[in-house]
Amino acid sequence: MRNFKTLEWIGDYRGFLELTDQRRLPGEFVKLRCETVEQLYDAIKTLAVRGAPAIGVAAGFGVCIAAGQIKSNSKLSEAIAQLNTKIDYLAQSRPTAVNLFRVLDRMKTKAEKFASGSSDADISDLRKVLLCEAQKIYDEDVEMCRLIGINGEKFIPDGRAVLTHCNAGALATAGQGTALSPMFTAAENGKKFKVYACETRPLLQGARLTVWELLQSNIDVTLICDSMAAVLMKSKRIAAVITGADRIAANGDTANKIGTYGLSVLAKAHNVPFYIAAPSSTFDMAIKTGSEIPIEQREPEEVACFGRIRTAPQGVDVFNPAFDVTDAENITAIITEKGVIEKPDAEKIAQTIPLRQ
Amino acid sequence: MRNFKTLEWIGDYRGFLELTDQRRLPGEFVKLRCETVEQLYDAIKTLAVRGAPAIGVAAGFGVCIAAGQIKSNSKLSEAIAQLNTKIDYLAQSRPTAVNLFRVLDRMKTKAEKFASGSSDADISDLRKVLLCEAQKIYDEDVEMCRLIGINGEKFIPDGRAVLTHCNAGALATAGQGTALSPMFTAAENGKKFKVYACETRPLLQGARLTVWELLQSNIDVTLICDSMAAVLMKSKRIAAVITGADRIAANGDTANKIGTYGLSVLAKAHNVPFYIAAPSSTFDMAIKTGSEIPIEQREPEEVACFGRIRTAPQGVDVFNPAFDVTDAENITAIITEKGVIEKPDAEKIAQTIPLRQ
Repeated sequence: MRNFKTLEWIGDYRGFLELTDQRRLPGEFVKLRCETVEQLYDAIKTLAVRGAPAIGVAAGFGVCIAAGQIKSNSKLSEAIAQLNTKIDYLAQSRPTAVNLFRVLDRMKTKAEKFASGSSDADISDLRKVLLCEAQKIYDEDVEMCRLIGINGEKFIPDGRAVLTHCNAGALATAGQGTALSPMFTAAENGKKFKVYACETRPLLQGARLTVWELLQSNIDVTLICDSMAAVLMKSKRIAAVITGADRIAANGDTANKIGTYGLSVLAKAHNVPFYIAAPSSTFDMAIKTGSEIPIEQREPEEVACFGRIRTAPQGVDVFNPAFDVTDAENITAIITEKGVIEKPDAEKIAQTIPLRQ
Repeated sequence: MRNFKTLEWIGDYRGFLELTDQRRLPGEFVKLRCETVEQLYDAIKTLAVRGAPAIGVAAGFGVCIAAGQIKSNSKLSEAIAQLNTKIDYLAQSRPTAVNLFRVLDRMKTKAEKFASGSSDADISDLRKVLLCEAQKIYDEDVEMCRLIGINGEKFIPDGRAVLTHCNAGALATAGQGTALSPMFTAAENGKKFKVYACETRPLLQGARLTVWELLQSNIDVTLICDSMAAVLMKSKRIAAVITGADRIAANGDTANKIGTYGLSVLAKAHNVPFYIAAPSSTFDMAIKTGSEIPIEQREPEEVACFGRIRTAPQGVDVFNPAFDVTDAENITAIITEKGVIEKPDAEKIAQTIPLRQ
């Protein structure tokens, strides 16, 4: 059904990363080529690629790009030092999604282990090893999405409507998405259902990306402003809410796109089940509760302007957190590739998610 | 403090209505001249003038414009028939705000009574009588706003922050507003407080109008997206929510800008008091509960486009109700010019609001 790739490595270990530029959707379908780490940093920062899993996969390839920028005649130990500088730089692109740090750590460890164990290897060997690892991360992401679809499909009720926020679809992953994945699987299984997509202010990822994706797959979608979700719940038109996640604490508290917490409170008040769909890599077991998750504050212009048109008066203060934290007690279940964690708490999560990750 | 007029009749009974064109704020401060009923209908429909009280006051002057369009040599009985046709036309401009219908009825009754009791009067006499009545409605509105400010001022806590949605300020009335009026009064009394203004999608009346008004009066205002209200409440930064109303049923159920109901649910969940500030004319005692209030559905393009730029894919379904209904049980108090109705219900409302209006 899907006829686009969110991100793709082009060529061999001397290649580059090609992204679907999500800043331009849905108006234009344009590919963005990242040949330097700086270009990728900018692409992550400005949301040309976004969504916790996709950021992670992109960062994996980012380390390959970094390795490509190292002089071919460098010593391996020097190469590792240079690579680590680039990795530290990439880690500063977004602060909330844990997948970014996890992938960068994994790539770093891979590079260091390779360098320490292969004294006669050269830079091109290192590059090949890193590309192999990044591709593996990509493939794991695709498989993770597929399994979330299978595990979450039962929560998409035939003949009813579900609500989602922001974009946790194929555009947020290398595969068929997290929150949208159960919908794609349900549609493949012949279920008829409707999706209400919150537009997701300020950057309209719901209006621009989720609607675009669902229409591409012929799934019945209706766009709403974020403030309209409450009346839909009141009139019993929403059978379930499903969103993605950017970081999940060990107790199940979940950071996701700003607005998610409010939806969880509304869902609870209207007895609507509220699901988070996310890979196990989104769990940060080092963080006990949501209050420890750093929340990215973004530029005031995202709220006070539309493109170059100012919509609010000059000089107004703006509060613009990119994420909020939904308390575990508001979450009916967390759908992961390893299984569904119902009424999540620290104990149940520890049983499903590997402690060391 | 205020250096603009939301609407003003210019000239004598042969004059015209001048509006601050709210479609152009905050970018441009432009006056819109309404010399025909058709121009005023368009101004109401397209939100050049908006806010239940301001629509009512504008409609009063609209009947004066209609009277001005009648041929001066018409018989009074013919004039009344023509006037009623124009009144019926104006009544179709917006369906939810009851103030519109109430003012049109009042002007209609005034015209009919005058015509039946003054057989020797001519059209210009009728025009003078109608302008006098419209001006009286204007003055009553100004006084109503002032009294709501006095009655509601105690709900603005010194040193804390309040949250408002849409624009129920001076731009929504002939006076100093409804929901914003207690803030203006509190500021005049030297209270220090902060206002969080929800931007109010899709048409951004909060970002464009409320922020503009509050900045003009040097009130500390911070702009947020509608989806950010919940985290502010969670972090205990909101001491009270105050909004206006477009129609209030006899039991206290309140129609107001889409998003208000959701805020009321969030406020309840976070133990934040939730106030409605509205004139007694907003009560529709003929309507028992909120479920009977007609809700205006507006064009999909308001959500799917920004100006002429499309933000969502072509062909997507859009749900775009202009209003929602907040249950009386979610409302801590209704602040009117006649007094404050705490924990509103049918009995308490009947004690404060005249039954026949």
